[in-house]
Parts: sequence; C-alpha cells; structure tokens
Amino acid sequence: MNETILLDHGAGGRASHELVQRVFARHFSNPALDSLDDAAVVEAPAGRLAISTDTFVVDPIVFPGGNIGSLAVHGTVNDLCCRGARPLWLTAGFVLEEGLPLALLEEVVAAMAEAASAAGVAIVAGDTKVVGRGQADKVFINTAGVGVIAPGVEIGGHMARPGDAVLVSGSMGDHGVTILAQRAGLGLNAPLVSDSAALHGMAAGLIAACPGLHVLRDPTRGGLATTLNEIAASSGVALELDEGTIPVDAAVNGVCELLGLDPLYLANEGKLIAIVAEDQAPAALEAMRSHAKGGRAAVIGRVLEAPAGRVWLNTAVGGRRLLDMLSGEPLPRIC
Amino acid sequence: MNETILLDHGAGGRASHELVQRVFARHFSNPALDSLDDAAVVEAPAGRLAISTDTFVVDPIVFPGGNIGSLAVHGTVNDLCCRGARPLWLTAGFVLEEGLPLALLEEVVAAMAEAASAAGVAIVAGDTKVVGRGQADKVFINTAGVGVIAPGVEIGGHMARPGDAVLVSGSMGDHGVTILAQRAGLGLNAPLVSDSAALHGMAAGLIAACPGLHVLRDPTRGGLATTLNEIAASSGVALELDEGTIPVDAAVNGVCELLGLDPLYLANEGKLIAIVAEDQAPAALEAMRSHAKGGRAAVIGRVLEAPAGRVWLNTAVGGRRLLDMLSGEPLPRIC
Repeated sequence: MNETILLDHGAGGRASHELVQRVFARHFSNPALDSLDDAAVVEAPAGRLAISTDTFVVDPIVFPGGNIGSLAVHGTVNDLCCRGARPLWLTAGFVLEEGLPLALLEEVVAAMAEAASAAGVAIVAGDTKVVGRGQADKVFINTAGVGVIAPGVEIGGHMARPGDAVLVSGSMGDHGVTILAQRAGLGLNAPLVSDSAALHGMAAGLIAACPGLHVLRDPTRGGLATTLNEIAASSGVALELDEGTIPVDAAVNGVCELLGLDPLYLANEGKLIAIVAEDQAPAALEAMRSHAKGGRAAVIGRVLEAPAGRVWLNTAVGGRRLLDMLSGEPLPRIC
Repeated sequence: MNETILLDHGAGGRASHELVQRVFARHFSNPALDSLDDAAVVEAPAGRLAISTDTFVVDPIVFPGGNIGSLAVHGTVNDLCCRGARPLWLTAGFVLEEGLPLALLEEVVAAMAEAASAAGVAIVAGDTKVVGRGQADKVFINTAGVGVIAPGVEIGGHMARPGDAVLVSGSMGDHGVTILAQRAGLGLNAPLVSDSAALHGMAAGLIAACPGLHVLRDPTRGGLATTLNEIAASSGVALELDEGTIPVDAAVNGVCELLGLDPLYLANEGKLIAIVAEDQAPAALEAMRSHAKGGRAAVIGRVLEAPAGRVWLNTAVGGRRLLDMLSGEPLPRIC
C-alpha cells in the first residue's frame, strides 16, 4: 500500500478494501462493524432513541489535548448525553484529501478508536471518500450517534424553569483558545490544552443525582453565551449570570485579553451546562465535582421569568449587561 | 442574509441560526428536528436497528436525474433497505465552501427534503460547517440513517448459498456514465440520466414475496462486479453470471465503448442485487418488475459452491472469465 492517500482509495474497489482492512476495520473492530455490510445491525431496547450528527473540520487536525478523531467521538457522544441518553453506537464518515499521509490518518483513526472505547460506544458503520488535492483540507470527519434514553428521563433545551440554577462543569474557552493559538503560531508559553473529553460519566452522574435536572447542553461553537441564548429562547425564559462565578483558566484569560476575545464566546469540547431545580443545585455541583473533568464546576446564575430569550450578565465590576449570541466569526474551523 | 455562504454561517452564532431557520429547518421540518436540541429524540420499537452512513462528494453537484441532496438521501435509504430494514430516520451533515451560492444550497436542500418525504424518512438531526474558499469543493453531505428490522427478517452479504439465483433490478452503469459525461463536457446527444432512486418500496416487496431472500445489495461505487466480489467473499461461495442476461442501456453501452469503460464496474444509485433461493427466483423477478424502477429486472446468474470468493462471467461470445474487483479509479467523486 502506498504511503499517502490516493483517489483510488475512495473508488470502492480493491484499494478501498485494503484501506478499510488495514486502518478502519483493524482499529474499530466490533461485531456489528465487522460484517462490512451496507448497514450494521444492532439490538436496541424498546423506548426512546437519541440521534445526533456532527461534522468536524478543525484546523489543525492535531492539537494539544487531542486530534480531529478524538474530537469527532467526544462531540457526538456529548450531544447524545445532553438529551439524557446513554450513547451506544456511532457512525464515521471520512472525506480524505488526496495526498494525506497514511500515518496521519492512522493516528486520527487510532485516537477515534481509543475515544470510542473510553466512552463505551461502538463505531458500527463507516464510509470513506477521497477527493483530489485542493478539493478538501486533509481530512473531514462526520460522526452520527445513537443512544438510548431511560424511561422517565426528560431533558432538553426547552425545559428551563424560572428559579432554576445554572451550572457549568468547568472553565470556559479552553478548546477555542488552544486551536487559535496553534493556528496563529503564536508561540505562546501559556499551557493551553483543549478540554475535549467525553462527558457520558458526568451526565449519568447528574441524572442519577438530580431528579430535577432540566437542561444539559455542551457549549461548543459560539461558546457559553450563544448556548445560553439558545436555551433562553427555547424555554421562553431569561437567564442571569454572575460573571465573577464563571470559571475561566488564567492562561485562557491572558490570551483572550491579548487578542481581544471573550472566553464566553469560545468553543468548549468537554464541558456541560446544567440547569436544575434550585434546591438541587448542591447535588448537581457535587455530581459534577466528583467527576475527573468537573473539579472547577460552579453555580454561575439562575433562570428568570422574563424577558424571554434574554441572557443577562452581572459583571464583576457591578454592572449588568445583555449577553447576546455570537455575531461574526472569530475563529473558523474550530471543531 | 447575504446571497453566498460566509464563514460566519458555520460559526454557531446568529448567522448560523438564521441559515438553519431559513433553509434547513424550513425544508426538513418535523417534530423531532424542530426542537433544534443537541440530539433528536424518537420512539423506536424493541428489536433490531440497522445503522448506516455515507458521505457524498459527487462532482458536479447537480446532474441529470438529481443532485447531491437527493443522492445523499437515496444512498443511505438504500443501504438500510439492504439489511431488510424499514428506513425511518436520517441525519444530515453539511460541509459548505465559503462563497457557495445560497440559491444552490437551497436547491440541494429542497431536493433532499423531497427525496426524504418520498422515502418515508424524517431528517431528524443536522449540522453545518463552513470552510474557507479552496478548502472544500462547494458542498459535501454526510447522511447517516437508522431503520427498524422486522422480526424474522435476516438478510446480509454473508447469506448467499450454493444454488441460489442472482438477480438485478435494472440496467447497470447509468449513474456512473451520467456523471462522467457531465464532468467531461462530452456534449453527447445520448439520453443519459442517473438512476438515483430510493428502493424502500422494492425492497419491502421482495421481502414480502420471498421468504428465501438471502442477500440485498446496491451496487454503487465499484459497480456490479465489485459488489458481487464482496458478496462472494463474505458468503464463502462463487458466483457465475451470464453476460447476455445483464441489462445495460444502449446509450450507456455506447458511451462505455467510446471511452473504454466497463458498465459492470460503474456506479448505480437506484438498483438492487438480490440473491434468493433458486425456487423463488420467479417470485423475486415478479416483485422487482412490479416496481416502477424494476421494469428491466433480470435473473443474471447463480451461486456456486467454489472457489470461494470468485465471480465468473460467461461471456456473450461463449467464453468464461474471472470478474475481479475494481482496481484503479476510473471516475473519482462519482457519489
């Protein structure tokens, strides 16, 4: 086999089969995938399924804390968790650029396999297309996921109620700033690492600890501010945050100040927002903090009745301002 | 909103929301999608699910008989049908190139919505990324699909048995030749049209008519020859085809002769291969022919015991040759 990806690898013939056997089937192997049929067959319990999809085009494809492969698993796993589902099955669709080093593809695929295994999901179906040089940038990965929602679990962006407490599981903006610093070649000495992680364990802990858990969301593109605007609109409520309580890593803050960015608008790939009945805020905080990725979890605000769709920020210096959705594109290809 | 896609449309903020509302949510609207949450929630019966994924990078994105949107629906619907599943839910992941005309995106999305509706599937989750000019070619679409397999239905590429009959539902190579002719700007007068179509109805008819239906596959990339090689290997059998019985459209044959291509290696996007117990070949043929897309269905060969993994072609002129997998790439970005 050649050492770079050729158009031939996407043609569906012998070279495609060799690539599948050598790279994908070897790393992802599981009973549902191994038949390499047109679709995988799995057994599901009766009830509700959560279904999600996400395409990853992050640039660079390898970054401190992960690569596009691990990110593609974490992103879809976390989307399923945010509806209260136990993630079970993923699909993986690759678009490869002709000339991609095979060793780089294998590094990405190995990270995907490791992330899937750690998250307890099986990659049961896949597809690979190859496009000519200059028709894509190295590798794009789509993952779609299916999970199972236990009876009685009802979580969604529309369920925030006035009086609820708003929590985040850790510091904001780590992934966004890490990618930006890599890309800009800033040569910063700051210890920046993406927070990319699977949050199925933390989500399960929250569900078990809080019968009054109303909303779970992961604040990816658009950051905390945009995601909270979506929740406020979807639930028909206002949200109020206390700036001083929102955890932001010192290094992230430093880079943001240097570049004029706001960490509340930067992507996170391993953080949860939870909105819970007020009396369950301590239990939710405890559930987050007992998880390895939740050490800096905090209660950051509350749900108000009106005005619907608005997010207010009580600033650290005693002011109060509207926190709008992201407008403009500070960071293309962040995930 | 601007008339072309901007990086901003992929940032997850206000422009992304406007694009989702104006284009995706409007065309795809259904209860599971409309919540626009991190994942869709659907009710599934207990039992086996079929899960599949396919990414589409076809060039050109609009062609006689469809566009990349309708193709992306048909491809995944047909993959689910090939495991005997009733396709129910699709996800759609878009990679858009900055500068893509919005009208073209809307044409693609409208075709997807129409194809999904006709196939009885709901597009329940989606994702859009935008990459800079020259980092992708116009639009790539991933679809993943989930379907439900009725109890007792057991169909797969590993189930061909010696003595079984091999059928195809129509002429070979139409999609591949149509794309090639478009791309090469051949200026042919030949009436070439892609066969892109959803085959859920035909598959359901075959399942109902033939308890001895062992294999269903759609011969896409790599064509009939490659797909039959996969089945022969997976089932541990040999296959024998009679060249004179394989339907090929006269115009497709003409273009293939002109360009030195073999229609048995060209992609189809609306055809089924069925392998059935010998005594059920007439029932399978009748089930195919009673479908609007199956008028030229034919019995084209049979399953032999050995040598495992081989496909033989009894040629029209009385010879016999091995029909190998596709090697090399005659047609990049065919689907």
